[in-house]
Amino acid sequence: MHKGKGLFITFEGGEGAGKTTQIELLKKILEGQHKDVVLTREPGGSPGAEDLRQLVVKGDVARWDPVSEAMIFCAARRDHLVKTIFPAIKQGKIVICDRFADSTMAYQGYGAETDKDRQKMIPMIETLYHFVAEDFKPDLTVFLDVPVEVGLARSRGRCGNDEQRFEDKKESYHRRVHEGFLDIVKNDPERFIVVDATQPANKVSQDILNQMALRGFFLKIQQV
Amino acid sequence: MHKGKGLFITFEGGEGAGKTTQIELLKKILEGQHKDVVLTREPGGSPGAEDLRQLVVKGDVARWDPVSEAMIFCAARRDHLVKTIFPAIKQGKIVICDRFADSTMAYQGYGAETDKDRQKMIPMIETLYHFVAEDFKPDLTVFLDVPVEVGLARSRGRCGNDEQRFEDKKESYHRRVHEGFLDIVKNDPERFIVVDATQPANKVSQDILNQMALRGFFLKIQQV
Repeated sequence: MHKGKGLFITFEGGEGAGKTTQIELLKKILEGQHKDVVLTREPGGSPGAEDLRQLVVKGDVARWDPVSEAMIFCAARRDHLVKTIFPAIKQGKIVICDRFADSTMAYQGYGAETDKDRQKMIPMIETLYHFVAEDFKPDLTVFLDVPVEVGLARSRGRCGNDEQRFEDKKESYHRRVHEGFLDIVKNDPERFIVVDATQPANKVSQDILNQMALRGFFLKIQQV
Repeated sequence: MHKGKGLFITFEGGEGAGKTTQIELLKKILEGQHKDVVLTREPGGSPGAEDLRQLVVKGDVARWDPVSEAMIFCAARRDHLVKTIFPAIKQGKIVICDRFADSTMAYQGYGAETDKDRQKMIPMIETLYHFVAEDFKPDLTVFLDVPVEVGLARSRGRCGNDEQRFEDKKESYHRRVHEGFLDIVKNDPERFIVVDATQPANKVSQDILNQMALRGFFLKIQQV
């Protein structure tokens, strides 16, 4: 379960936060520095995890109860780690992942409907994470912050989106998820870069790079 | 997470122990007593869990690492409980299930390759069980005991078996699984009936019924 010599960067954020665009921009910049970059995503990122993804991102909102859903995400994450992420990091690559464990915590944990459910799901998801990843965590997580209504309006206007099952949930749910992300950031500030993602894409990208530089993250990248 | 007024009976055993035959025989006897019986199985038993089953029972032996596999089984179990088992028990039915949590513990826990892996997997599977089922457990579990070599010879000679991925594993694995079942029985003797399943099917069935009677289980059945 050792990381090896590469780096692991994750992008998090609600629907329509612009993760895909920012990941592509960062990839180009890192490749411009002659780094070997692997783009991946969750749920998915390995053949087994992509099979599991198909079972959770599509279908009726009530298809899975929250416990089953959290476990499917974590089973997929384990497969993704073992088959894709760990081997790439071991080879010295920079792995950039579109959503990772913080999404499970925000959507399936903080997003749970009642206080009682949240009190059950949040520690459960914490435990499941340790079962799949032990003490491994991202070297850096970029949280693209947009107000819920802006993100949903953006994402609902988009074509070819295959995460329809989550977007169909009520706005109150997305609001709990957003609060969740903010809480997760607050509890682990050293891992996170938070960027105002209502700005134009090139400004968001510049903010990300500035914050990475301020933290000396490009020195780490040079060492990869 | 309350059981309601029905009963939950599970059948466990290695490959080729004759579970399917014995379940059918018990079903007939209970139906002869005008009981409403639901037969189900794991992994599977609900539409979502059957989808997950397809991902674990087929394909290459190394398709899933042990942690992913255990989580997929537990996600499927949760779906099975919530969608099939709990509603049926609530309606006063007798649910008979072909394999349940003891199989996960025996195959994915005790079946793990090294002592270190077993020490990791056994408590993990215990925790996962409580996440999916809380304090619910079978009212009765019938363990059909056959020596490993007898069971494997029976099951490999059988057609239309769709659990090929597990049967393809080495005999040493099946031996650890068998020892695991015996240990599970030892730790929860009140829940288990253990029957020598090398006997002819009608003798096995008679032994099951005798032991159920000795434990006063038919009184419980009358109250359903």
